[in-house]
Amino acid sequence: MITRLSKLFVRTLREDPVDAEVASHKLLVRAGYIRRQAPGVFAWLPLGLRVKARIETIIREEMAAADAQEVHFPALLPREPYEVTNRWTEYGDGLFRLQDRKGADYLLAPTHEEVFTLLVKDLYGSYKDLPLTIFQIQDKYRDEARPRAGLLRGREFTMKDAYSFDVKDEGLAASYQAQRDAYERIFARLGMEYVIVQADAGAMGGSRSEEFLHPTPIGEDTFVRSAGGYAANVEAYTTPAPEARSLEGLAPATVVDSPGTPTIATLVELLNERHAKAEPWTAADTLKNVVLALTHLDGTRELVVVGIPGDRDADMKRAEVVFAPAEVDAASEADFARHPGLVKGYIGPWSVRGAVLGEESSTGIRYLVDPRVVDGTAWVTGANVDEQHVLDLVAGRDFVADGVADIASVREGDPAPDGSGPVELARGMEIGHVFQLGRKYAEALGLKVLDENGKLVTVTMGSYGIGVTRILAAIAEANHDAKGLIWPEEVAPYDVQVVATGRDAAIFEVAQGVAEQLEAKRLEVLYDDRPKVSPGVKFGDAELLGVPRIVIVGRDAAEGRVELWDRRSGERSSVTIDEALASF
Amino acid sequence: MITRLSKLFVRTLREDPVDAEVASHKLLVRAGYIRRQAPGVFAWLPLGLRVKARIETIIREEMAAADAQEVHFPALLPREPYEVTNRWTEYGDGLFRLQDRKGADYLLAPTHEEVFTLLVKDLYGSYKDLPLTIFQIQDKYRDEARPRAGLLRGREFTMKDAYSFDVKDEGLAASYQAQRDAYERIFARLGMEYVIVQADAGAMGGSRSEEFLHPTPIGEDTFVRSAGGYAANVEAYTTPAPEARSLEGLAPATVVDSPGTPTIATLVELLNERHAKAEPWTAADTLKNVVLALTHLDGTRELVVVGIPGDRDADMKRAEVVFAPAEVDAASEADFARHPGLVKGYIGPWSVRGAVLGEESSTGIRYLVDPRVVDGTAWVTGANVDEQHVLDLVAGRDFVADGVADIASVREGDPAPDGSGPVELARGMEIGHVFQLGRKYAEALGLKVLDENGKLVTVTMGSYGIGVTRILAAIAEANHDAKGLIWPEEVAPYDVQVVATGRDAAIFEVAQGVAEQLEAKRLEVLYDDRPKVSPGVKFGDAELLGVPRIVIVGRDAAEGRVELWDRRSGERSSVTIDEALASF
Repeated sequence: MITRLSKLFVRTLREDPVDAEVASHKLLVRAGYIRRQAPGVFAWLPLGLRVKARIETIIREEMAAADAQEVHFPALLPREPYEVTNRWTEYGDGLFRLQDRKGADYLLAPTHEEVFTLLVKDLYGSYKDLPLTIFQIQDKYRDEARPRAGLLRGREFTMKDAYSFDVKDEGLAASYQAQRDAYERIFARLGMEYVIVQADAGAMGGSRSEEFLHPTPIGEDTFVRSAGGYAANVEAYTTPAPEARSLEGLAPATVVDSPGTPTIATLVELLNERHAKAEPWTAADTLKNVVLALTHLDGTRELVVVGIPGDRDADMKRAEVVFAPAEVDAASEADFARHPGLVKGYIGPWSVRGAVLGEESSTGIRYLVDPRVVDGTAWVTGANVDEQHVLDLVAGRDFVADGVADIASVREGDPAPDGSGPVELARGMEIGHVFQLGRKYAEALGLKVLDENGKLVTVTMGSYGIGVTRILAAIAEANHDAKGLIWPEEVAPYDVQVVATGRDAAIFEVAQGVAEQLEAKRLEVLYDDRPKVSPGVKFGDAELLGVPRIVIVGRDAAEGRVELWDRRSGERSSVTIDEALASF
Repeated sequence: MITRLSKLFVRTLREDPVDAEVASHKLLVRAGYIRRQAPGVFAWLPLGLRVKARIETIIREEMAAADAQEVHFPALLPREPYEVTNRWTEYGDGLFRLQDRKGADYLLAPTHEEVFTLLVKDLYGSYKDLPLTIFQIQDKYRDEARPRAGLLRGREFTMKDAYSFDVKDEGLAASYQAQRDAYERIFARLGMEYVIVQADAGAMGGSRSEEFLHPTPIGEDTFVRSAGGYAANVEAYTTPAPEARSLEGLAPATVVDSPGTPTIATLVELLNERHAKAEPWTAADTLKNVVLALTHLDGTRELVVVGIPGDRDADMKRAEVVFAPAEVDAASEADFARHPGLVKGYIGPWSVRGAVLGEESSTGIRYLVDPRVVDGTAWVTGANVDEQHVLDLVAGRDFVADGVADIASVREGDPAPDGSGPVELARGMEIGHVFQLGRKYAEALGLKVLDENGKLVTVTMGSYGIGVTRILAAIAEANHDAKGLIWPEEVAPYDVQVVATGRDAAIFEVAQGVAEQLEAKRLEVLYDDRPKVSPGVKFGDAELLGVPRIVIVGRDAAEGRVELWDRRSGERSSVTIDEALASF
């Protein structure tokens, strides 16, 4: 097909849209690929739709290669299945809810585990029917609090979501691997850099879970990786616990006055002034006690205190994972007021052995610690008395925690939990997610099949998602320069753009002929045939649109010569028309 | 591609689903093409999705041939544009409305005139940019009061909707014709019988409007057509008015007692008893006065009385068109109670000339008449007094109507308004609609472009819809028998189904080979490779699924022979494998 630019429904803009924060958003709007309809909701113009269709084709081909079969669910779904799994409630404000004319509750599905499970339950009943992997490419809805970055976090977005169904755990592992392999092939074909990181299962609840992150400074996810091959979302990073140390010969705990030291910085200053030792005190010597308020699913509010090394902060995202499905907040002033035993700025452990800390320190609140707080480690921490701290408080001797909570922030240089060396931190964007759901959904919705022995067994499931529209934006983000988009060949809206320059009808005749000969090679051709537009504007538009290869037909056309222009390298070379055609 | 039936995600059912009323719904569910998710909301299984994709491909090809460019809008749209055109309100309960987390109003779009208009306004500004026709294939939502008949009237359904934009009326006429022609090509390729009927513009408001109706006894629309080529929706049929007759020499009006004759039947009986004449009285001699209650957009309620020949009923759908945008109901008892001048069963015209009917007959209510009630026609009708009628009441002499209202039912044999002979009535299903919107939407939303003289002019638009999922159901409805579906080749989920019968491994080897050779001919092949399923079950499933051509590989495979089975004719013939392959 030849598309004439003079007829194409597109308008390029010189100015960035005012609401655009990131390059992909700016350029996709400026180049006429998408237009905003509402916050996080976009319309697709012909150019955008072409790129999207090519990405979808690649995904479909690789799904077919992985024996996944395509189905299609509505976006509008009844409440009931989501009520059974509690996600109607759990999704909170993120779910678009509505009622029909009869008052029945519906939602716009953010993901489809429930109805895929019910569909398989409806159709299948025997182990012989499995394994099965089915997928759809479908528009999903999430009412994001802050839709941002154009397509990267929209409220309506296209996803490929697949679900696998197996009788046995080994079957699930194989289905999971098949999708994981397909994802690797898809991202390779799309030319997208990616890192597979261990991910937290989060609200989905399950066993193995990995994210495909596309490294980019504008990514919303932080991940860690070691030179030795470890990679994980920071939420999934687990702090390796050091060996416990001997309690013998450790200095006894001492309570000291510490006026005006409610923060770690002021405490360390006081320590170095009043209790100087060979090595200066640092924040790492102190134990910071963070008070968190958990809101459980049944609505009850519980305070917990977590002791973490004073040189780290609590990472609330990591805390959310640790305490899921409870919601986590910092404790409020009201929380402190209800618990006078918590002396703000001077909190220390309780569950005390011996009499180091006073009786008033027993609060009935769970006291948890960072994995690094192993037996035999000594800390400076609050004495649960205003303006007093305790030195040499030894874990396992002077206090015993109620448990471990790995909520401290992760830092460059922290050890990978698999021993593969120190980690570095990077930012990435989630472009895919593979997930062993296990039997959670099948259990909740009663998906059982007869096994070889005629016994009903619950099916085990996997869930696999790729964000189609997000991938498109990520590719745009990774493939542009100051002048515009630079599409990889595999997803470009057109294979080649022919630009006719000048006003001479003969030039347009040659250009038309070149376009036709390229079309005859089964290439998708965009032909800039606009008669009264200057070469400068045409070149600027070509750079903005980002078709990877451009043929310029200008003055030299009379001598049978054209220019080949590589959008990515910027190189132009004068060649004969035959050479130009032969290069495709 | 070869799809193995043993792996295909499908389950055939022997029983009809309990909620299914029509054959297409029953068979599409039983054959495993679709599954219900909620009233009027369906999920698509692999077989259904394949047929749908093929229909969409045909539509896309014909849209491209008509120079229409594809775009894609979200289903979730903000309220504002629909507020401007008043459709946010006009759609009433038929619109799915919702709010986001910030309380902003949204809708699930039932159709996209507003946002297409705004998009063109955003991108274009000159007459040089036009004409333009853009389309999408997209899932739409309407909260039908009574979703029924499976896909034929769903609450979520896929539509191709196109919109044309022109500066001049002749341009709109050309764009309209191009879409109309494309629709004819699409339905021809789909092998669908259709009739193009004049349609009422209805709530859309515009000038030329035609519907593509697929004749079928289960259609929701009634249409009329004449042998001479006239065709119209009954709502759009206009009754030709006869010539007015001379008032001279007509008998004077006479009021007569008519006890116990509140209905036309009882009245006619009384006339024949007490006022017999050469020809017996019939209902056609009487004027029936129908009291309607109109609810105007501003909420006010108005009663009108329409006089129609007594041998016809008021057709409420036709009345809706006549009185749009007001809503029309039959008058209630309360309405009559508020208007004692309306003597139920004995109502006659007022606006009386002369003193035939009493003073009390002046009610302040509009009195309208059927187009057949021309000057000089004489009627028996109510005298506006209980148990009295008037004979020989002559239009134009004894009463003058306030206007004409063409609301009477249309009958077989009524004259086509274009003089092309008597009409017949038939039932049809709307499968396409082409519509000259004119400047209504452009006006409301400010879509103007500069014309040749640099003057801003309002754009004129057309709107063109095809129901993709409805077409699929209509094809199923028109192509089935008692045993199952019979797909036309152009939309069949597979080109050919290979059925291996018997338990002999050699048969399966031959069948596999046949499937591969068919695949090599670029055919889509469904291979029934199920090892332990009886031939009877396999044949039954093949008939239910409806792949048009079937190759049976059975006992004769050893001699290199197979059976060719034509699903539609039911004919089977034994041929050599080479002959079988050569027939494709």
